[in-house]
Amino acid sequence: MTYFRENIERMAGYVPGEQPAAGAKVVKLNTNENPYPPSPKALEALRAIGEDALRRYPDPLATRFRAVVAEVLGVPVDWIIAGNGSDEVLTMILQAFVGPGDAVAYPMPTYVLYRTLTEIQEGRCVEVPFDEEYRLPAEELAAARAKLTFVASPNSPSGTAYGLKELEELAGRVPGVLVVDEAYVDFADATALDLVRRRDNVLVLRTLSKGYSLAGLRLGFGAGQPSLLEGLWKVKDSYNVDAIELAVGAAAFADQAYKIANAEKVKASRAKLAGELEALGYRVWPSQSNFLLARPPAGDAGRIYLALKAEGIFVRYFQQPALEDKLRITVGTDEQNGVLVRALEQVQGLRQ
Amino acid sequence: MTYFRENIERMAGYVPGEQPAAGAKVVKLNTNENPYPPSPKALEALRAIGEDALRRYPDPLATRFRAVVAEVLGVPVDWIIAGNGSDEVLTMILQAFVGPGDAVAYPMPTYVLYRTLTEIQEGRCVEVPFDEEYRLPAEELAAARAKLTFVASPNSPSGTAYGLKELEELAGRVPGVLVVDEAYVDFADATALDLVRRRDNVLVLRTLSKGYSLAGLRLGFGAGQPSLLEGLWKVKDSYNVDAIELAVGAAAFADQAYKIANAEKVKASRAKLAGELEALGYRVWPSQSNFLLARPPAGDAGRIYLALKAEGIFVRYFQQPALEDKLRITVGTDEQNGVLVRALEQVQGLRQ
Repeated sequence: MTYFRENIERMAGYVPGEQPAAGAKVVKLNTNENPYPPSPKALEALRAIGEDALRRYPDPLATRFRAVVAEVLGVPVDWIIAGNGSDEVLTMILQAFVGPGDAVAYPMPTYVLYRTLTEIQEGRCVEVPFDEEYRLPAEELAAARAKLTFVASPNSPSGTAYGLKELEELAGRVPGVLVVDEAYVDFADATALDLVRRRDNVLVLRTLSKGYSLAGLRLGFGAGQPSLLEGLWKVKDSYNVDAIELAVGAAAFADQAYKIANAEKVKASRAKLAGELEALGYRVWPSQSNFLLARPPAGDAGRIYLALKAEGIFVRYFQQPALEDKLRITVGTDEQNGVLVRALEQVQGLRQ
Repeated sequence: MTYFRENIERMAGYVPGEQPAAGAKVVKLNTNENPYPPSPKALEALRAIGEDALRRYPDPLATRFRAVVAEVLGVPVDWIIAGNGSDEVLTMILQAFVGPGDAVAYPMPTYVLYRTLTEIQEGRCVEVPFDEEYRLPAEELAAARAKLTFVASPNSPSGTAYGLKELEELAGRVPGVLVVDEAYVDFADATALDLVRRRDNVLVLRTLSKGYSLAGLRLGFGAGQPSLLEGLWKVKDSYNVDAIELAVGAAAFADQAYKIANAEKVKASRAKLAGELEALGYRVWPSQSNFLLARPPAGDAGRIYLALKAEGIFVRYFQQPALEDKLRITVGTDEQNGVLVRALEQVQGLRQ
């Protein structure tokens, strides 16, 4: 006998992300962390946290953090809601918009959490395959008539981004809400943020995990018109974002110059690494993110993944349709990327 | 037209907790924070957080924090799951066990989040009124045949706790899962933790917000048999607890001596304050928590609440059945409690 709901009972068990042991000497290019430290101003804010900030409940409205975000983005403060990572904003979105049997549409492959959260809500996943170029399958997404449609832009694991115009067209065709997940936008040429001004059914998600080097902090937010955020506020845990996250996050987000400078370094390293992989015969998809999707010349991605792991180099391998012959490689520092490239040469027998 | 689910559309809007403005000089006895600072070891752990802990994703398994908790409680580590506050563990519990139409039972009045989370899941709330003595209505709770039954012990806002024997009997009679919410147990004479060893349908919840003075940190956990935690792991956000919470929380939980010493101070102040309120003619319910439920002699709780607020003293007033004539007063330091008692004397015209 089970006490669980049927849909939960059916779900696959939890598989934690691959984390090297503490202190292990590895080149970690598997979970898209930023290779550069967070802003010194974020560190300063952390050091300034006092006893009272720990002892008292945090601000349930995240007022100061949201004010900083709103000012930087040029939207009113009530167009912003904060979450314990953008993952938690995704949870709120599913809870607010999706009940049993409701359709949730997204292109595949993409962020696996869209499927997991839909299953938790007993929703119905409509998974539209990308073509080999990872073009947006707008026609099929619109045809799904979903209550909720997800487009990650830039998308993971492809790294491909989608233009404001095609996203706006899609927003006009879906009957429900369109979520544009911009977790990786800090490494992209453009944002679709302007859509929230033009459409009352669009939410744009951001995180501080990537561009701001704060994956360990868990802080993200959603932007949208207040009428659309209203239901998210209803399902939000009162104290979902802690006092330290709010203070450190506000300081980091205010320091746009630092974030942009790091993103420029990552983008330069990305171009260099892409060239080196292509020189090794890899197909590399055009990336607007801090990672590259790359297909080794022989398509033996699983073998290469294991060979790299044995050398203490972690990249990401997805054992799922359309990805079994590819690797997703986080762009590290030029030094880390160099270690990777030399290991790949060895794997191909180009080096001893 | 609305994009929201019907149950979300129907829900009442979000009302944030009452927070004094930053820097405001108030005596804050309304949200059951601990009046003493967190352990110096927790502060040390905070100061030791480095750039890499911020930059990298946190341990999704919360391994070290759970190991500390398991050792202190004397249970295996896989009997513990961590959450972003015990509020998030409650969210996971509802997601894992309650689908549309499923009954969720609890005595009233109690923690309001049980109702909110049940509504989000489209569950059916079975609310069993307490009697005037806040005895556990076990008969009616069992008769509800609920998939999920909540007992907060100590209960808020009554402060009353329930014995291991009556909780075990209830666990044997409910057809589903019994959650014993021990948020306030650090101020109580006993814990029901032993129930998780004896029953495969019991979860015990704890938080570091109260006893450990870490309300600003957001960290709690659930304890139960691994078969019962399995579904919670499935619905858990991968990175639900951040790197700082894990490090600071582990240090604080390991320092049991400090926590116990503070709890003893709070318990002594609680007895003193209860006596002083009774001397003013208040009825005070026997409390096992860090707050007192108290009925002013004339039952004019709403008026007194406002009069105190005007003096910069925040206590909690619930405008709901069975509570309109009572106040919930957090036990502060003896000095804070003294300020409160003198203000109450003034309100009653005993002082000028």
